[in-house]
Amino acid sequence: MASTQKPVVAITIGEVTGIGPEIAVKAVHDGEIFRYCRPLLIGDHWVVRKACEDLRVPARVNVIRSVETCEWEDGVANLIDMQLVPRESFQVGKPNAVTGKAMIEYTKLAVNLALARKAHGAVGGPHSKKAADEAGINFTGYPYLIAEMTGDRFPFLMLVAGKLRVTNVTLHISLRKALDLIKKELILEAIKATERAVKTFGVQKPRLAVSGLNPHAGEEGMFGDEDANEIRPAIEAARSLGIDAAGPFPADSLFYGCMDGKYDGYVAMYHDQAHLPVKVLAFKSASAVAIGVPINWATVDHGCALDIAWKNLADPRVIIETIKLIGTRAGYE
Amino acid sequence: MASTQKPVVAITIGEVTGIGPEIAVKAVHDGEIFRYCRPLLIGDHWVVRKACEDLRVPARVNVIRSVETCEWEDGVANLIDMQLVPRESFQVGKPNAVTGKAMIEYTKLAVNLALARKAHGAVGGPHSKKAADEAGINFTGYPYLIAEMTGDRFPFLMLVAGKLRVTNVTLHISLRKALDLIKKELILEAIKATERAVKTFGVQKPRLAVSGLNPHAGEEGMFGDEDANEIRPAIEAARSLGIDAAGPFPADSLFYGCMDGKYDGYVAMYHDQAHLPVKVLAFKSASAVAIGVPINWATVDHGCALDIAWKNLADPRVIIETIKLIGTRAGYE
Repeated sequence: MASTQKPVVAITIGEVTGIGPEIAVKAVHDGEIFRYCRPLLIGDHWVVRKACEDLRVPARVNVIRSVETCEWEDGVANLIDMQLVPRESFQVGKPNAVTGKAMIEYTKLAVNLALARKAHGAVGGPHSKKAADEAGINFTGYPYLIAEMTGDRFPFLMLVAGKLRVTNVTLHISLRKALDLIKKELILEAIKATERAVKTFGVQKPRLAVSGLNPHAGEEGMFGDEDANEIRPAIEAARSLGIDAAGPFPADSLFYGCMDGKYDGYVAMYHDQAHLPVKVLAFKSASAVAIGVPINWATVDHGCALDIAWKNLADPRVIIETIKLIGTRAGYE
Repeated sequence: MASTQKPVVAITIGEVTGIGPEIAVKAVHDGEIFRYCRPLLIGDHWVVRKACEDLRVPARVNVIRSVETCEWEDGVANLIDMQLVPRESFQVGKPNAVTGKAMIEYTKLAVNLALARKAHGAVGGPHSKKAADEAGINFTGYPYLIAEMTGDRFPFLMLVAGKLRVTNVTLHISLRKALDLIKKELILEAIKATERAVKTFGVQKPRLAVSGLNPHAGEEGMFGDEDANEIRPAIEAARSLGIDAAGPFPADSLFYGCMDGKYDGYVAMYHDQAHLPVKVLAFKSASAVAIGVPINWATVDHGCALDIAWKNLADPRVIIETIKLIGTRAGYE
């Protein structure tokens, strides 16, 4: 296949004071991603060049101001230079309002390129929630930001590590608030979004497992009633739509053997219930896919790692796998 | 060492209509446990004999009515015949009020033997909460039953699988109720009990890790305040007592690598937060140790498996490991 036929994948450099720029240029330099996509970096040119120079990563980059001027060549990434971070606002490992705002603007451009089908997919670099906060932006995760831009009502984050795919019904809120949100409608939408997403990973008839909320999935109502009153009806409603969903299962035993494809997709009720098994089994190797939104988007399941930023210590393996995942995902041509 | 020098470990057969009797006689017949203890079965003799005969497990058992008449011989378990389950109340796989009451009475005798130092430790067979309920007894786990008998205010369940030891600050209650209990005092008591327990497993200076409650351990208060307001003060109080406790750590990433002894003990806030990593990493091979109580007690981290009961399908490995753990535990001579 000629390089020009491969999907264009926008890749933001995320929070610039963290490891985002480093893993982005390492991914470009590594080269494997060119077999899966035409990478289009989004960031500030001087930051990317600094990463290449300071960290001695001779990634090849073609700087542009707009996607229309892309020139595609194997081994060379195009880079949209957004010029949002003045040098005086940049300090290694110190996110601030300027870098937080830049991270959000990189994201918005990537989302808009994907919505306009100028990119076939996009990968968000690791972010800093704190920096976004300092910029006055309540950033609770890429899926929610995308949904805010697109008007979609039911965005979810799905963690993907090989055959293990786990949807978060709720995400970046306190456990107490999460409990208030565990309702039939939201769970049903999460099941539906999970089925659609798993299909885009090439599973034609996904078998889904839905976790319970309480110990022993409520133990017949003795340990809480959400399992019986909210989760089970959502599963039954999904089944009546023809979705092969089972559960609610006790969450503690659900994930044993899950890397072997026991189920094609899992629906977990809250952040740690989804993240804990993934991090135990696939530490720092998962992608975080936005589902329930109309674009092909993922990010890495690790933070911007301020403690090791700009020290040439960051491993680009997860972003490479995430770019490959987005580049190969079906249904977004 | 002469057999008579080994600790006496009481072993209840648990819920008789489940796999309890089968794994007990298999453990006796297997023989390995005699290197660690003198086993004293507690149950109904006819049930134990039926298990030996129906399942063709030629375990050697010496039937007694009281612990004073024990005769110790290598390879032979003593059995206290409590005569609590009439044959007409027994149906394979069907726990009921009679079997539930019997399970509780077996337990109480084992607890009392341990309190009286007539047994050096005890292992509870797998129970049925439902059967206890039918007997009008609110059984929420062995640690709580023991504490009710002894007047101890802060019992906890600790899961143990090799070097992985995880304390449940809360256990068999709804997640919503658990949230109401996550308070500094209870967490501090859990940390203290964890340190004492880990020492009994031979770790002289335990390094403990305490998990957070909310996503990212609260993300500096943005995702809930229990981590900062309850858990962190409990850890600080523990440290001021000289306990090497760290945290609160985000629960999702805390358990990666935990089988390698990253920490000697973990304190988790609720049932699934503790059980999920243990079940993913050590499925059906953990023991559940009662801590914060004055006796040496554990049970198996699996249920009474009604679906496979009395079919010669049950694996005694976990109860064997649990008996070995109790037999070798220090500080209870």
